[in-house]
Amino acid sequence: MAPAIVTLTTDFGLSSGYVGAMKGVVLGIDADVTLVDISHDIPPQDIPHAAFVLGASYRYFPPEVVHVAVVDPQVGTERRPLLVDTPGGRFIAPDNGLLTYVLLDLAGRTRPDGDGEGFLAPTSVPVPEGCSAYALTQPEYWRHPVSDTFHGRDIFAPVAAHLCRGVRPEEMGEAVGEVTTLDVRTVERRPGVVEGRIVFVDHFGNLVSNIRTGDDNAADMEVDIRGRRIEGLKRTFAEGRGLLALVGSHGYLEVAERNGSAADRLEAGVGTRVRLVRRSEAGAGS
Amino acid sequence: MAPAIVTLTTDFGLSSGYVGAMKGVVLGIDADVTLVDISHDIPPQDIPHAAFVLGASYRYFPPEVVHVAVVDPQVGTERRPLLVDTPGGRFIAPDNGLLTYVLLDLAGRTRPDGDGEGFLAPTSVPVPEGCSAYALTQPEYWRHPVSDTFHGRDIFAPVAAHLCRGVRPEEMGEAVGEVTTLDVRTVERRPGVVEGRIVFVDHFGNLVSNIRTGDDNAADMEVDIRGRRIEGLKRTFAEGRGLLALVGSHGYLEVAERNGSAADRLEAGVGTRVRLVRRSEAGAGS
Amino acid sequence: MAPAIVTLTTDFGLSSGYVGAMKGVVLGIDADVTLVDISHDIPPQDIPHAAFVLGASYRYFPPEVVHVAVVDPQVGTERRPLLVDTPGGRFIAPDNGLLTYVLLDLAGRTRPDGDGEGFLAPTSVPVPEGCSAYALTQPEYWRHPVSDTFHGRDIFAPVAAHLCRGVRPEEMGEAVGEVTTLDVRTVERRPGVVEGRIVFVDHFGNLVSNIRTGDDNAADMEVDIRGRRIEGLKRTFAEGRGLLALVGSHGYLEVAERNGSAADRLEAGVGTRVRLVRRSEAGAGS
Repeated sequence: MAPAIVTLTTDFGLSSGYVGAMKGVVLGIDADVTLVDISHDIPPQDIPHAAFVLGASYRYFPPEVVHVAVVDPQVGTERRPLLVDTPGGRFIAPDNGLLTYVLLDLAGRTRPDGDGEGFLAPTSVPVPEGCSAYALTQPEYWRHPVSDTFHGRDIFAPVAAHLCRGVRPEEMGEAVGEVTTLDVRTVERRPGVVEGRIVFVDHFGNLVSNIRTGDDNAADMEVDIRGRRIEGLKRTFAEGRGLLALVGSHGYLEVAERNGSAADRLEAGVGTRVRLVRRSEAGAGS
Repeated sequence: MAPAIVTLTTDFGLSSGYVGAMKGVVLGIDADVTLVDISHDIPPQDIPHAAFVLGASYRYFPPEVVHVAVVDPQVGTERRPLLVDTPGGRFIAPDNGLLTYVLLDLAGRTRPDGDGEGFLAPTSVPVPEGCSAYALTQPEYWRHPVSDTFHGRDIFAPVAAHLCRGVRPEEMGEAVGEVTTLDVRTVERRPGVVEGRIVFVDHFGNLVSNIRTGDDNAADMEVDIRGRRIEGLKRTFAEGRGLLALVGSHGYLEVAERNGSAADRLEAGVGTRVRLVRRSEAGAGS
Repeated sequence: MAPAIVTLTTDFGLSSGYVGAMKGVVLGIDADVTLVDISHDIPPQDIPHAAFVLGASYRYFPPEVVHVAVVDPQVGTERRPLLVDTPGGRFIAPDNGLLTYVLLDLAGRTRPDGDGEGFLAPTSVPVPEGCSAYALTQPEYWRHPVSDTFHGRDIFAPVAAHLCRGVRPEEMGEAVGEVTTLDVRTVERRPGVVEGRIVFVDHFGNLVSNIRTGDDNAADMEVDIRGRRIEGLKRTFAEGRGLLALVGSHGYLEVAERNGSAADRLEAGVGTRVRLVRRSEAGAGS
C-alpha cells in the first residue's frame, strides 16, 4: 500500500521553526506519512493567495491525500478549525476562505458569476454535494497544551496524522453545513466584453485573472489592463516581446511579460481590473 | 517498520546545489531514508538563529530521528564535528553552539538564569545526563575526498546515513564530555520585573524573548521594549491593534504587531532588551 | 526495494502552485515515489544557474534516480522535451542547456577548453558514450490537455512518474544524437596564467569559477578579479579576513569573502573574468 500523503501550505516561511514543528508532530503520530511541501512562501496573512495556490495544486494529487493549509491570522479566536472531506482530497484548514477555489471546483463551478458581494468578501456557502465538512471539536486528537497562537502545530497537524492512521472525520468533529469562501468570481459580461479581476500574481510576476476563456480566434481578442491595450492572445510566453496575454496553465486569462514581470511593469496586483474584448463583437469605443 | 528520518537545517538557501548534494549523499548511502527539510533559510552564518529553529522543531519529532544542522562558518578549522545522542533525538552538527536550545531542554533547564557570561557568548557545558556526545573522528564513515569547505556533504550527511543504517555512534567517533552552547539565558530579576533579551525574530517579524512566563493575571502585566510600553498580555494575535505582547507558542514572552512586523516597527532584533513588569509588584518609576 | 526517487529543480519559487502541481502529478501516477526538492529558487529563466545547481547535486544521488529540471522560457515552442539516460542518473528537461554540466561530466571532461564559441553560447554536442537521449514524443505518457505554458506539469512530471513505474525511455520518445549545452568552459592558458570566468554565484555570494585547480603550492598563487589582487589560496573560509581565494567544494577556484558576499563586494557575477597566476612562472607585469 502506498504511504499516506500529507501536503502543507503555509505562510510560515522556512526561516522559523514552525514548519519543522508541524512536520515533527505529524511524524510523531504517524512516522510512515510522506510529507509534501506545496508552499511555505505564502505572503504573511494572505488568505486569497494561499487559497489560489492550494486550488492550483490539490487537483493533481491522488484523492486520498490530506491537504493541510495554515494561513491563520485569526488563530485562537472564534474562527472554526475545519476538516472538509471531498472526492478530490481531504482538507484541514481554518474556516477563513482558504478552501475557496477547492470548493468552487467541487461545486462544479455552477455558481453564477458576480453574486453581488464585493471582491474578496467572505461569504458562507453550502458544503458542495458529495462533500462533508466538520468543525474540529474533539481535543483527544490534538496536541496539548493547545497554544492559542499555533493551531497548525497543535490541532491541524495532529488531526491530519490521525486521519492518515484511519480515524474517521466524524470522530474528530461536528458536521457543519456551511463553509467560508471569498468572492473571487465577480465578473461582468457585456456583448463581446468580459470584465474581471486579477486574482493571483505568480512567482514570475504573471497576472492571473478570473476570466475563463478558450483561445478560439485569439487574433480577434484584445485585453485592457491599467490603461494598456494588448492585442491578440498568444499561445506561449516566447511569442512577441514585452507584454502579452494568453490562456495560462490554470485555464484562465493571464497577462505576462516576456522574461520579465507584468506585475511590476503594470504596477498591477490582486484586484486589478482586466477586460477581455472580442473586437468583432464589442461596440465601438468600448 | 517506519523508515528512518533525517531532518536538515542549514543556511545554504535553495538557490545553490549544497542542499541537493547533502540529500544525494544521504540517499546514496541509504535510499530508504525519509528526508525532512526543517529550514534552509537560516540567515548566512547565523548560529543563534539556527539553534533556535532546531530547538523549536526537534522536540515534536519521534526520538529516533536524526537531525543534521549545518551552519558552519568555521568549517575546516579546529571546531569539532559532533554527534550527540539524546533521549529526544540524535543530532549531528559542528560544535559551535547549534545545539544550545536542545541541550538546555535536555538538561531540564536547571542552569541558573544569568551565568555571568555575555549574551550569546560561547561556553562549554557538560553533556546532560542521559545523553552522550562524540567527536566524529572515523573517516571510514565519511565521503572522500573531504572538502575543507563542505563538511555537510562529506562528513555530516554520510554519518547521518550510516546512523540510519545502524552504525552505532561510538563506532563513528570519540566520546567527549563537553559541548559548546551560547549564552541565551541572561535574564535579570528584580521584584516585579524580569529583564531579558530578544533571542529570535520569526518570519512574521514577531520578537521572541528568553523570558518564560505564564499568563496569569495578564492584565496586570506590562512590557517595555525600545522605549515603548505595551500594556497587558493578549491571548491571540487578533486582539487589539498595533503592537501587542503575549505568551507565544514557544512558551516565552513575545512582542508582535497585528498583521505586521514588530521587528520593523520597533527596529528591534536579537539582543534587544525587553522587560516584563508586574505593575502591582514593581516599585514606582520602574 | 528502495522507493523510486524523483528530484525537482525549477525556477518556479514556492509562492505559486506550480511545484505543488508537479508533485501532485507524479504522486497521482505513482504514489510510492519519494520526491526530493533540489531547488525551486533558481532565478527566473536562468538556465546557466540551474544547470550548475543540477550538475553540483546529481552526482551524489544513486544512479537510478530521476532528475527533473524545469527552467523553460521557450516552453511550447520548437525546443524539444528531453529524457537523457546516463550511468549517473536519468534526466528529464527541456533541451536548452540545463544538462550542460551533467553532460560535461559524463563526457569525461574530454572536450578541449575554449572551443571558440562565446561564453554561455548554446551548442549541440553529441550524446556522450554510454548515455542515450530521447526527444519525448509519445503523448500517451503525458497529462492532457497539454498546456502550452506548463510542460513541467503536463509532460516532464508524468514522464518521470512513468519512468519510475518501469516504462522504458525508448517507449516514450525518439532517440536523438545531439543535445544542447552552453559553453561554460572558455578558459585561456598562458605560461603560469589561466584566465577563466565566474560561472556561478552561490547563496553566500561566493564566486565559483570554471578554473579547475589543485592547491599545490598555494602560497605561490595569486588571483586577479575586477582589478583586485588576492594573494595565496586559502584552505578554509575562516582564514584571513576580507576577500580570499580557495579551491571550493566543487573542485574549482572560488573567490569568497569571510562572513560576507564576494559578489556584492566585487560587483561580480556570472561572466566576470578571473585569472589564476602562478607567480613563480608568470612573466613580469602579467
